[in-house]
Amino acid sequence: MAKEPKQLDDLFHDSLKDIYFAEKKILVALPKMAKAAQTEELSAAFEKHERETEGQVRRLEQVFALIDETPRGKNCPAILGLIEEGKEIIADYKGSPALDAGLVSAAQSVEHYEISRYGTLIAWANELGLTRAVPLLEASLEEEKATDEALTQIAETAINQEAEAA
Amino acid sequence: MAKEPKQLDDLFHDSLKDIYFAEKKILVALPKMAKAAQTEELSAAFEKHERETEGQVRRLEQVFALIDETPRGKNCPAILGLIEEGKEIIADYKGSPALDAGLVSAAQSVEHYEISRYGTLIAWANELGLTRAVPLLEASLEEEKATDEALTQIAETAINQEAEAA
Repeated sequence: MAKEPKQLDDLFHDSLKDIYFAEKKILVALPKMAKAAQTEELSAAFEKHERETEGQVRRLEQVFALIDETPRGKNCPAILGLIEEGKEIIADYKGSPALDAGLVSAAQSVEHYEISRYGTLIAWANELGLTRAVPLLEASLEEEKATDEALTQIAETAINQEAEAA
Repeated sequence: MAKEPKQLDDLFHDSLKDIYFAEKKILVALPKMAKAAQTEELSAAFEKHERETEGQVRRLEQVFALIDETPRGKNCPAILGLIEEGKEIIADYKGSPALDAGLVSAAQSVEHYEISRYGTLIAWANELGLTRAVPLLEASLEEEKATDEALTQIAETAINQEAEAA
């Protein structure tokens, strides 16, 4: 029997598993980044986002329930690569005044990955008529955008100048 | 002799090598994505962005010259992971009406990676007083943002509906 070709609902489910895996990896990475950060403000921003990420994982579990699927992750090479780059920054810039600037950069590339994924999931949820999933995904998208902006603020007001002045 | 701690100019140089490596990988991936795309419009968008990416590589070479460095890439696990996800989409959704929706999603996550990297590089170039690098990096950032928006347009006007209707 020929396999049914995959459809948009499969793509939605696959991407949901991808971001679920990613959020869980991020949840492990954030405390390490908070610990590595030299600026109090940056450390606090990572801790705040860790709590938000816990909520995002729960929202994704609600979306899995809405499509009658068990919450399950799917290996996501992109997030592994992004997190790897953060680890490299911590290793290469430990003790350097530029460490925090590098941490912000690594975190913002993760935020942008999530912004892209949530944006896509929202478009597909609308297309598939998954109207109850949309506000859940939108709430997480807004948090990711706000985190990205907060990181830019922190970098601009303190970190980059300090890294340069050192 | 103790090694000098790395500074913001090292971070700038490291990130420049990272995005240079990434742009070159993207240059290899784009024709494959254009070939895989089912919609003429999407295929044309990938081809257009391939030409833009060639220009972005040249701009990065100009920035390397401005900091007196030889253009050289640095292994970037993030872009390898992102491109890997694109390849998985092509393999998993070949022949499916949802293929193009998946290709847009993969391409947008790459665009967001670049948006994040160029944004950071611009902030650091300003901090470091690399005033001639700023407009070069800004020109590429604007192209990445425009590509991201164009992909959203293509997905909304044709692809997602087709994927769902199939």
